[in-house]
Amino acid sequence: MSPFELTILGCSSATPTSTRNPTAQLLQVAGRFFLIDCGEATQIQLRKYKVKFQRIDHIFISHLHGDHYLGLMGLLSSMHLLGRTKALWLYCPAGMEEIINVQLKHSATVLNYEINYRFHDSSKQELIFEDEKVLVKTIILNHRIPCCGFLFSEKPKPRNLKKDAIESYKIPPSAIPAIKQGQDFIAPDHSRIPNSELAFPETQTHSYAYCSDTCYDEHVIEQVKGVDLLYHESTFTEEMKQRAIETNHSTAQDAGNVALKAKVGVLLLGHYSARYTDLSPLLEEARRVFPNSHLSYEGMRFDVEKKSAELA
Amino acid sequence: MSPFELTILGCSSATPTSTRNPTAQLLQVAGRFFLIDCGEATQIQLRKYKVKFQRIDHIFISHLHGDHYLGLMGLLSSMHLLGRTKALWLYCPAGMEEIINVQLKHSATVLNYEINYRFHDSSKQELIFEDEKVLVKTIILNHRIPCCGFLFSEKPKPRNLKKDAIESYKIPPSAIPAIKQGQDFIAPDHSRIPNSELAFPETQTHSYAYCSDTCYDEHVIEQVKGVDLLYHESTFTEEMKQRAIETNHSTAQDAGNVALKAKVGVLLLGHYSARYTDLSPLLEEARRVFPNSHLSYEGMRFDVEKKSAELA
Repeated sequence: MSPFELTILGCSSATPTSTRNPTAQLLQVAGRFFLIDCGEATQIQLRKYKVKFQRIDHIFISHLHGDHYLGLMGLLSSMHLLGRTKALWLYCPAGMEEIINVQLKHSATVLNYEINYRFHDSSKQELIFEDEKVLVKTIILNHRIPCCGFLFSEKPKPRNLKKDAIESYKIPPSAIPAIKQGQDFIAPDHSRIPNSELAFPETQTHSYAYCSDTCYDEHVIEQVKGVDLLYHESTFTEEMKQRAIETNHSTAQDAGNVALKAKVGVLLLGHYSARYTDLSPLLEEARRVFPNSHLSYEGMRFDVEKKSAELA
Repeated sequence: MSPFELTILGCSSATPTSTRNPTAQLLQVAGRFFLIDCGEATQIQLRKYKVKFQRIDHIFISHLHGDHYLGLMGLLSSMHLLGRTKALWLYCPAGMEEIINVQLKHSATVLNYEINYRFHDSSKQELIFEDEKVLVKTIILNHRIPCCGFLFSEKPKPRNLKKDAIESYKIPPSAIPAIKQGQDFIAPDHSRIPNSELAFPETQTHSYAYCSDTCYDEHVIEQVKGVDLLYHESTFTEEMKQRAIETNHSTAQDAGNVALKAKVGVLLLGHYSARYTDLSPLLEEARRVFPNSHLSYEGMRFDVEKKSAELA
């Protein structure tokens, strides 16, 4: 079965450190590879963690601060040089297209594949991606420039059939799709066979909310209500609250409060200021509010179904 | 004494590998820190090799292919965030300014320091930097888009005085600068004291020529004649000659031929295609033509005076 799995490629804030790269994450859902933000050197991180980056067809850029997109041009270029021809979808602020096109122009490069742009409207939550298995919505964040997070949700999965019962009740093939969706079967004689006799219970679906750069904002809570996994930036500890306010960032306590009030399953912290070598004060601060908080770190692979992490 | 020393920060061609970053080099001359090209993740490499990057006041960009400049925006941004206020000089193709300004605009950033641009004219060799100790000229290369290399030369150094002789001959202070420049002293009675009695011989000066991306071109030879150290790209071996021609790159043999014909001291190879895991075929090919050829590698620190390398 395909995992619902998040790999952390970078967890630093604006100035990277010798051990922490700027923000980038890879989310695998139902066999799809979603790249979320693309800080400088993301292509190097993808290689390091052995991600086949030509499998990435959808890239989500939260905002146009360099620590969230400066690796994009290099990745697009390597995709091109390594022979990509299939289209790529880019969910980003409108300015991204100008930044890319200016650079293609000066390097006299015409990409061998198409980029399909889908620009955010950072003023309202929108459905920006949908296929048969996955939905992606924006999350309106509150930062110094327009900035969106992303909410990734699996759609309800078809129920697995109880084959013996299907046979013994002689269920016609035309009725199967409705049974997989959870409906009872109404026989020609109007008798009702409950779905639970014909199919196994619905498999659980999962969700992940990514909140890149934002100050503490109660509007975020509504948008990430009840997700299995929430990543919420925690650039500072409360000691640096004033700096957090000035720069439109959050403290670890802020992140814990969002997680608590939104009743999420697990909270992942990240986007750490370069001033912190030891990250445990951030973790402790978040855990005082929301015990199921964890530090993200480079190479962390978080299995959202099992709610457990391992090193990639 | 300040070294004349080159540090290799990246030696890959367009697509980086898990062990090789795209092109960037740091040249230290007479206490000046010159950054030469700035591929993606250069700021991370500078940290890795413990270079204080606020000491860099002059950045030289050879051309606008991403593997030579994509790390610049991140470096400029980190310089800003870490409090830089002193001006920076940027020697680059004119398009660089547009690329930087578009990104500053979309991130709503005003840098706290000034960037002074000096655009190359890639059609003729020019003096682009001069101070009391160092000269930098462009080198006209032959690539798919306008591209310049750079020739760094120390100016002749003042001779050290033989203090006892200066005293015993009662040389007046006004005559000292000329003696340091190597002139004889003409006494009031018109007698001549040869410079060799008053000063030690001239200290040797050094030079470094950087040829980033170019096909084999005889015009390069004239421009790098007799340098102590030549870096010349060697993307391919002769087996891939056709590909080298198509992409306007050089083979290791081409690099060896330039070194041989220009009678340089030492040749450094670099800008290796990602196809080569083992680089020894490139080295062997260059050495067949020019025996004093060496592979550049990340973290290599090459002392141009001693003509020897060590790991940074």
